[in-house]
Amino acid sequence: MTGVAPVEEAGAEDLTFIVDQRYARALAESPAGAALAPVDLDVSPGETVLVRVPNPRAAFGRLTRRFHPEREPPSGVHPTAVIGTGVQLGDGVSVGPYAVIREDARVGAGSRLDAHTLVGPGARIGDGCEIGAGCSILGPVRMGDRVRVLTGARLGTEGFGYAEEAQGAVPFPQIGGVEIQDDVEIGANATIDRGALGDTVVGAQTKIDNLVHIGHNVRIGEDCMIVAQVGIAGSVDVGDRVQMAGQAGIAGHLSIGDGARIAAQAGVIGDVPENATYSGYPARPHGKAMRASAALFRLPDLVRRLRELEERVRSLAPEEDG
Amino acid sequence: MTGVAPVEEAGAEDLTFIVDQRYARALAESPAGAALAPVDLDVSPGETVLVRVPNPRAAFGRLTRRFHPEREPPSGVHPTAVIGTGVQLGDGVSVGPYAVIREDARVGAGSRLDAHTLVGPGARIGDGCEIGAGCSILGPVRMGDRVRVLTGARLGTEGFGYAEEAQGAVPFPQIGGVEIQDDVEIGANATIDRGALGDTVVGAQTKIDNLVHIGHNVRIGEDCMIVAQVGIAGSVDVGDRVQMAGQAGIAGHLSIGDGARIAAQAGVIGDVPENATYSGYPARPHGKAMRASAALFRLPDLVRRLRELEERVRSLAPEEDG
Amino acid sequence: MTGVAPVEEAGAEDLTFIVDQRYARALAESPAGAALAPVDLDVSPGETVLVRVPNPRAAFGRLTRRFHPEREPPSGVHPTAVIGTGVQLGDGVSVGPYAVIREDARVGAGSRLDAHTLVGPGARIGDGCEIGAGCSILGPVRMGDRVRVLTGARLGTEGFGYAEEAQGAVPFPQIGGVEIQDDVEIGANATIDRGALGDTVVGAQTKIDNLVHIGHNVRIGEDCMIVAQVGIAGSVDVGDRVQMAGQAGIAGHLSIGDGARIAAQAGVIGDVPENATYSGYPARPHGKAMRASAALFRLPDLVRRLRELEERVRSLAPEEDG
Repeated sequence: MTGVAPVEEAGAEDLTFIVDQRYARALAESPAGAALAPVDLDVSPGETVLVRVPNPRAAFGRLTRRFHPEREPPSGVHPTAVIGTGVQLGDGVSVGPYAVIREDARVGAGSRLDAHTLVGPGARIGDGCEIGAGCSILGPVRMGDRVRVLTGARLGTEGFGYAEEAQGAVPFPQIGGVEIQDDVEIGANATIDRGALGDTVVGAQTKIDNLVHIGHNVRIGEDCMIVAQVGIAGSVDVGDRVQMAGQAGIAGHLSIGDGARIAAQAGVIGDVPENATYSGYPARPHGKAMRASAALFRLPDLVRRLRELEERVRSLAPEEDG
Repeated sequence: MTGVAPVEEAGAEDLTFIVDQRYARALAESPAGAALAPVDLDVSPGETVLVRVPNPRAAFGRLTRRFHPEREPPSGVHPTAVIGTGVQLGDGVSVGPYAVIREDARVGAGSRLDAHTLVGPGARIGDGCEIGAGCSILGPVRMGDRVRVLTGARLGTEGFGYAEEAQGAVPFPQIGGVEIQDDVEIGANATIDRGALGDTVVGAQTKIDNLVHIGHNVRIGEDCMIVAQVGIAGSVDVGDRVQMAGQAGIAGHLSIGDGARIAAQAGVIGDVPENATYSGYPARPHGKAMRASAALFRLPDLVRRLRELEERVRSLAPEEDG
Repeated sequence: MTGVAPVEEAGAEDLTFIVDQRYARALAESPAGAALAPVDLDVSPGETVLVRVPNPRAAFGRLTRRFHPEREPPSGVHPTAVIGTGVQLGDGVSVGPYAVIREDARVGAGSRLDAHTLVGPGARIGDGCEIGAGCSILGPVRMGDRVRVLTGARLGTEGFGYAEEAQGAVPFPQIGGVEIQDDVEIGANATIDRGALGDTVVGAQTKIDNLVHIGHNVRIGEDCMIVAQVGIAGSVDVGDRVQMAGQAGIAGHLSIGDGARIAAQAGVIGDVPENATYSGYPARPHGKAMRASAALFRLPDLVRRLRELEERVRSLAPEEDG
């Protein structure tokens, strides 16, 4: 085996995978060298070596990294990196060209910072983290281990908070921190604001996609999936295993229960219970929202039926004064 | 006093604040060292020293900065900064590592440019401005005093304008400027395009949050609040004191009156009068939109009532030909 | 002629243009030196020299570039640029300060890379491309000729793909490429993910605005216009000449036909046929969506009419058991 490929494209030297019956036929016709398949799936693999596993997609994900090792940046600290006083770098840290690590920051063992990254004064980056090119990890950030931040993300920026006064908006202090727990992933050009007074928190294993905005003092639980361009306003409390699809928005100070699912583009303006699925604007339980939306498209027909009924009733008993 | 904290967390050495009766009880139980409170609020502060002020939130904002002075970047021009010919730097300017200031740009007294910032040829930055790490302040930008631009924002980029031709889209010239007036704040990874022929303008005191997009030739008035991920298409005219909540979108060439409020995720496709509040898509006056949205969820019930009525009328007078 | 200006502002030394009768009167009163006008438009230009062309807007666009040549970055490779081993630079390439081009990347003749740009290992950039300041063109990217990428855009980032397992989300491999064809333009801070196994593709002449997100394995055809803050989820297939207005979102694995138009903020959750116009959430044919939306605002009136009718029918035949 020298490569990996989807079942339709796999050749004799490739490893592939199938997840259900829909792909079993494609596999039967495929010259793939080997295939991962579910333990109990009925499949005739032809010449392909079949490897039965409980979760072929996950297993394929793990194996693929062996076939396609990433081209890692050169290890060591590039001579152009600017390292401030009091900075602590763990063993095997890699720092790319023109990165800037300011005073008193700490970077844990084996972490890799790509080119043009800024790490602010006093920031903490754990072990085995990867920080993409051009990221800003500002001073308020404390990061766990194995966190991955893709290129251009901005962590620890000041939140959007003002006190209204007669002469205009006065900035409210934005002096809190950001806590990013272990195994979090953060997408390209995403932004995560520091807390106003307390912390903004992203729980372990949570995955955040590109161009997502997380406001100040938001607390996100563990194992959440936050898809591209979602916006979460200040002080929202998000439980564990919550999924938010692309471009959804959550208004400030709300609570989203464990296991809740927020549909794409949903505009949430009230609390969402545990395990509920919400969609639409204002977001409501998804079944209701879909029925309402379907009914909406029958409205013109409804208007017609009402008019006919009015005429019929009028013909039954003409109004005296009409 | 050595710190600041919200009332629930404040200790004997902390300054806190309360804005209304809801927090008065928390204050009664708090060991806070001192608290700012409204002039006329009925409150029993226990051991806490009470300081009466007209606007506790604003006063707290101002005082907090004394307790938490920001760690300022080192003053002076970092030796790695690339300064073009004809660049003018005012007194006390701070330029971070690897910043690039191109020919003929001007930076006013006391302004601070963080690492990896690019200032384009001929750009103007006023006095006392702060430009975050990795920002692009391109050549067309003219900036007033005390402007703050957070990390990764892009000002003066070319707008999205094309002339349609049989063989495809031809770029329409994007050669105008960007005027950012005094005391404006611009969020992380936000983008503000230069005008096509004239200028894009952001009025004094206006605050713009993360990941906002401002199109070419948009004119925004003073004291506006534009929340995260809002998009304003080309040539929109926004008045003073306008508030746009997160993810709202304004279609091109519209006019938004002074004091108007645009709800989160609203999709504005027509002019909005002064002081009006609009929501939904297409955006309408908020009260109407909320009533319509509420009615929508009663539609299934309405359909049932109409069907019952139809049957009842039919039973009263069976149709001859039906 | 020394400048260009819109007809309302053009002076005796300026070239301007008009596209239809609405501007003909403004031109009659304008001191503009010269004006481009449609071949068959009835217009009395006063002193202005009139130049008849088939498409004045497009012609003006082309001519403007002669009046306002861009201030190009200095040619040549800046001495601070870090160029990896095996990098191939074509004739006349310009590389700005602190740019980093990693091993085995290729940049075609006449291409210009601005300051702080990162080009990843093995990436391919064609001839005559312009890459703005602080962009990340990661290793998986293969770019045609005359591609323009504005400042802060991120190309070739890892997509958002995970396999669910009991102990949490396992990353699914993101090892495919990105193909950007000739004459594509990509806006500031936009993000385009690499394919998971195959490629993400952007067709020739397609224009992408600021802060747009393109997911993994998306295939976009030629001559499309994708306006600011649009999000396209993974594996969407977009035809040729498709227009998507600002903040529209397309759910994963859908097909958008040639010539389709997607309205601003539309939330597309099903396939869109060729040449159709869709709007709203869930997106539907625009005419239907607008009628439904209009009907919605008549709902309170409908409820009132139904109630009156119910009372009237009750008065005709009072229910025995009610």
